[in-house]
Amino acid sequence: MRALQYAGAGTAPQVVTLPRPAPGPGQVLLKVTAAGVCHSDFAVMSRPDEALGFPLPLTLGHEGAGTVAALGEGVTGLALGDPVAVYGPWGCGTCPMCAQGKENYCTRAAELGIRPPGLGAPGAIAEYMVVDDPRHLVPLGALDPVTAVPLTDAGLTPYHAVKTSLPKLTPGSTAVVIGTGGLGHVAIQLLRALTPARVIALDVTDEKLRLAREVGAHDAVPSDQHAATAVRELTGGLGAQAVFDFVGAPPTVSTATACAAVEADVTIVGIGGGAASVGFGTTAYNVAVRSPYWGSRAELTEVLDLARAGAIDVHVQTYAMDEAPTAYEDLRGGRVHGRAVILPNG
Amino acid sequence: MRALQYAGAGTAPQVVTLPRPAPGPGQVLLKVTAAGVCHSDFAVMSRPDEALGFPLPLTLGHEGAGTVAALGEGVTGLALGDPVAVYGPWGCGTCPMCAQGKENYCTRAAELGIRPPGLGAPGAIAEYMVVDDPRHLVPLGALDPVTAVPLTDAGLTPYHAVKTSLPKLTPGSTAVVIGTGGLGHVAIQLLRALTPARVIALDVTDEKLRLAREVGAHDAVPSDQHAATAVRELTGGLGAQAVFDFVGAPPTVSTATACAAVEADVTIVGIGGGAASVGFGTTAYNVAVRSPYWGSRAELTEVLDLARAGAIDVHVQTYAMDEAPTAYEDLRGGRVHGRAVILPNG
Amino acid sequence: MRALQYAGAGTAPQVVTLPRPAPGPGQVLLKVTAAGVCHSDFAVMSRPDEALGFPLPLTLGHEGAGTVAALGEGVTGLALGDPVAVYGPWGCGTCPMCAQGKENYCTRAAELGIRPPGLGAPGAIAEYMVVDDPRHLVPLGALDPVTAVPLTDAGLTPYHAVKTSLPKLTPGSTAVVIGTGGLGHVAIQLLRALTPARVIALDVTDEKLRLAREVGAHDAVPSDQHAATAVRELTGGLGAQAVFDFVGAPPTVSTATACAAVEADVTIVGIGGGAASVGFGTTAYNVAVRSPYWGSRAELTEVLDLARAGAIDVHVQTYAMDEAPTAYEDLRGGRVHGRAVILPNG
Amino acid sequence: MRALQYAGAGTAPQVVTLPRPAPGPGQVLLKVTAAGVCHSDFAVMSRPDEALGFPLPLTLGHEGAGTVAALGEGVTGLALGDPVAVYGPWGCGTCPMCAQGKENYCTRAAELGIRPPGLGAPGAIAEYMVVDDPRHLVPLGALDPVTAVPLTDAGLTPYHAVKTSLPKLTPGSTAVVIGTGGLGHVAIQLLRALTPARVIALDVTDEKLRLAREVGAHDAVPSDQHAATAVRELTGGLGAQAVFDFVGAPPTVSTATACAAVEADVTIVGIGGGAASVGFGTTAYNVAVRSPYWGSRAELTEVLDLARAGAIDVHVQTYAMDEAPTAYEDLRGGRVHGRAVILPNG
Repeated sequence: MRALQYAGAGTAPQVVTLPRPAPGPGQVLLKVTAAGVCHSDFAVMSRPDEALGFPLPLTLGHEGAGTVAALGEGVTGLALGDPVAVYGPWGCGTCPMCAQGKENYCTRAAELGIRPPGLGAPGAIAEYMVVDDPRHLVPLGALDPVTAVPLTDAGLTPYHAVKTSLPKLTPGSTAVVIGTGGLGHVAIQLLRALTPARVIALDVTDEKLRLAREVGAHDAVPSDQHAATAVRELTGGLGAQAVFDFVGAPPTVSTATACAAVEADVTIVGIGGGAASVGFGTTAYNVAVRSPYWGSRAELTEVLDLARAGAIDVHVQTYAMDEAPTAYEDLRGGRVHGRAVILPNG
Repeated sequence: MRALQYAGAGTAPQVVTLPRPAPGPGQVLLKVTAAGVCHSDFAVMSRPDEALGFPLPLTLGHEGAGTVAALGEGVTGLALGDPVAVYGPWGCGTCPMCAQGKENYCTRAAELGIRPPGLGAPGAIAEYMVVDDPRHLVPLGALDPVTAVPLTDAGLTPYHAVKTSLPKLTPGSTAVVIGTGGLGHVAIQLLRALTPARVIALDVTDEKLRLAREVGAHDAVPSDQHAATAVRELTGGLGAQAVFDFVGAPPTVSTATACAAVEADVTIVGIGGGAASVGFGTTAYNVAVRSPYWGSRAELTEVLDLARAGAIDVHVQTYAMDEAPTAYEDLRGGRVHGRAVILPNG
Repeated sequence: MRALQYAGAGTAPQVVTLPRPAPGPGQVLLKVTAAGVCHSDFAVMSRPDEALGFPLPLTLGHEGAGTVAALGEGVTGLALGDPVAVYGPWGCGTCPMCAQGKENYCTRAAELGIRPPGLGAPGAIAEYMVVDDPRHLVPLGALDPVTAVPLTDAGLTPYHAVKTSLPKLTPGSTAVVIGTGGLGHVAIQLLRALTPARVIALDVTDEKLRLAREVGAHDAVPSDQHAATAVRELTGGLGAQAVFDFVGAPPTVSTATACAAVEADVTIVGIGGGAASVGFGTTAYNVAVRSPYWGSRAELTEVLDLARAGAIDVHVQTYAMDEAPTAYEDLRGGRVHGRAVILPNG
Repeated sequence: MRALQYAGAGTAPQVVTLPRPAPGPGQVLLKVTAAGVCHSDFAVMSRPDEALGFPLPLTLGHEGAGTVAALGEGVTGLALGDPVAVYGPWGCGTCPMCAQGKENYCTRAAELGIRPPGLGAPGAIAEYMVVDDPRHLVPLGALDPVTAVPLTDAGLTPYHAVKTSLPKLTPGSTAVVIGTGGLGHVAIQLLRALTPARVIALDVTDEKLRLAREVGAHDAVPSDQHAATAVRELTGGLGAQAVFDFVGAPPTVSTATACAAVEADVTIVGIGGGAASVGFGTTAYNVAVRSPYWGSRAELTEVLDLARAGAIDVHVQTYAMDEAPTAYEDLRGGRVHGRAVILPNG
């Protein structure tokens, strides 16, 4: 089968031919229908090989959807051909975090060498992939796998962040979304579908601000050194009850805390190298600042249910398997509008 | 191997000899160290065979602890000899409830024919038992399996009930425990370990009320038609913020709602045939009345951690495998103090 | 000034002339702009005089909005002419419930003889009314007082009920609203504005079911003995995660519990004389059944903020002060569509 | 009457004679029984006069307890002689925060010039003090006002912090308390009374570490650059689920975040000039870092109820009114063990 592999620092991902894998006991083989391409792969590819902690080459792709192609021994509850999405943040399944389905916060994954597909285990940008356990599959039903596959990360990650802040987002409240790209433009839609909050989007170009309004932001404000002041003016001086920073760079993190109201939540999702300062006199009273990671198993079901209800619309740009390297080039070059999705068997 | 089996209505459980089972792919074989005997088995044995929904004979025992004796294909993360407790309310593992570890509320178990060990699947009162998935095992570490095994039901069930009501049990609040037997005397200890609430125990004999005080109840009151008035007097007329009924008979359920304060939680755990009436003018404003079942995977870990910290002391009365039928007779005859535990390999 | 008073059992409310009241220290005098008429007044008028617990005659009206006409000594933070809505469920202000703004659950109101306006204290259907404390006023700003005044009860009561169940109403969930009249048709709008749940409305006439769909219900089902089955069919057998019964009669309460899913919330708001049965085998596992009352101070602010955002549309039918008795006749005769509102100074 | 006043930068507080104040409408006059002395007064006295935002001289004391000496017009529900404690963080009483009793987070206090007693309004270190509203009084009942008065700040502040983290402090969890002085040694007692968590105390002297163990810490560890490593070793590498920093200096804040487990709460209470860094790669996943202030009205009732139940023991060192300046000198000189309390009428 063909797969997109990364061979090491300084190389570009390329399509290779590999034997089709077979599922071991308790595992499931998927025929991959669609696989998303994510910026965070560049973070992996920018690190020294020996810092990665897993062997190369690596089949890429941590967003995957497919149909059940074969069941390992002992697997029940699935039938050949079932359309499914892959829950990516694999954990041990038994630690206290995993026992609540929060495998993204597994306390034993590192120790046991468990890694997500495409981030250590063989990923989804391949004609076939092995999923280690049926609990990591969520039924897709009639959802279009091509537009649904980005929801496994670009949907689940903002959903996890937004869900944490729902109790703060009562009527009369304000939510700020910094960065309206892949994850941010989903976050705006999630906030509109799940809360009565006024949504203020911050980004740097007119095009991004226009997109933000199109997907539901009530206000769109340039993300610069005046942004926090603008948010305070729009909120009668109080600030926002929840701020989501999908950029996470030093200036956006400063804006994020500066526009937070008393008792607000500030969530730093982007991995742009920024860190927020929290303390007496630095942030408003009792602002909670967090930096979460991906989402839980139940949350993935919920985000897919939202898509099923028509509440989320992810724009995708598709590529055939052989064009997969181009998808990465387009993404790096800023030429992807929405999310790039590879169709390995398309 | 020897096992205690129930063959059908009108028969008493008896010790039989069966082939030692082998674990299939993804399963785990335990050598059983200790197995608890529970009143609820009598509920099973009192029903017509055809109403049970599973074939007979049935190996009894839904509280189990043992050591890992063999691993089915594909099982990792466990070593031979590991001491473990069995999480009993098996679910499908993938529905939205199971995805949060709340397998006790699995939405698909009935449809898929999944049943707990000892309540449909072969149970723990046997020299060996097969556990269907390693996620249903919790490490015991240095905990004594004999005193810990009742915690898998008689500890987990009240823990689940108490945990739901923790937000109501602030300083200055009152908790009422009706029925201070197997589950109730654990509930009193849980309330003392987890909350600052004043604990009022209700039961019908002086001996039970004395026991309630010994395990931590601040007050112990006869459970009769004056009980609700007594609780109101002890609470300055307000009533209790949480009431746990481990009897669940019509009179205790009436007492439970009658002594509930505004916004209280009333939890009916006992299966004594009672049902609470809830409505305007019937219960205090916004009292929440629930009837829960067993507990979640994470909660079992928590209750074992409490035992590890010395916060729970379950009195047990042990029986050898061949005396297992006697254990049931003793339990039915009211001759068990605390919890009866069988030692199948003892 | 003119006021609508109820003089005792067997009499109809009538317009009388009274001296204009003066605010005492710490009190506020309002010139009433609008006052809502509520079914629950009939419950008051159907009781024997001596069972009411307060002296007659009583100025009616527990939904009020007006402008500040005079400030008692020591009152600050308000200016003459400020438009405000009245928070009705007055409490003592200092007990633990009131200290959280939950004056609807005040633990001392009965003992201290504190009663809501129109339900013991002089009410809002008068040219002027005295409010006992400025904390019982919420600024209306630019909101139309005529359409906003019903929100102080017919909006606040369902908001309080819905808010309690928000954690259950995740994507993929279902909410059932029984009775789509005054409160129920607001509840449907609240559920659509605040949750991603599918909303199923139950009522007895085609007109009511059509109204339910118009204000946002996804499905509208006849409220009869087949209703619970219909809800189960619409939800793949699972039932609803939250059920709100605005009728509260014996058959609707039975329907409410019968269509509740495992771990659902059932909230009985209507005071139609029904009481739910809760227990093992009677309701699904861990269903929480409650009967709440009105709402909290913060919740009234939130429901007004929702109206400000355009999320709630209450149909009102207005009456001049002299027509106030007609409003009660129309309400009793089923001739009010939406909510009857008196304009005492109109 | 005598009162302790601060006259401006560079001066020490001194006892002066003032006219006894009279309560205005809606206010209450207290005869002060006990008033606590707090480190945070030095922060006030270290600032330039013009930066304070309120006029001098200022009667000090933001922890107060007394008996009702006179009621302003319109005040009900209190009787002369009633023993009460003063809730200090006065707010407007009507904004959405105040409507929930969270006056410590009042959104309008600054704008309206509302300030706590002893921090802008005349404080408790005087024979008499005026309290602006009866809602700011909590009944003391039979509690000793001398040992209870520090609970209004040194008890309420850690209680507010601990209460926020209760959901994280399940069985098997760990709480870290940095700084075991006035607030910290109360926090240790609160954690033992309210949670099953293992409590690890960090401080710099053997005496403080011994005190920490005496009041209930399971472990006491030197607060130095190895402290976070020590906490990780004591917790099997996981870290603590809640960390409370009552010092708030740069090194302790670093320790606080470094010993936080995945999904932990870090609460910075001390105002020692430190600020935590929060971001991807800086803190563990989803750690929430907050800097709260004082506590809510309901929380003060709860902390007094805990004291009533014998769960908190605050060591106090008492001073007569004329010795009040000495109390401040002793506090600054580190000669106060526990909390300094002035007895203005003693």
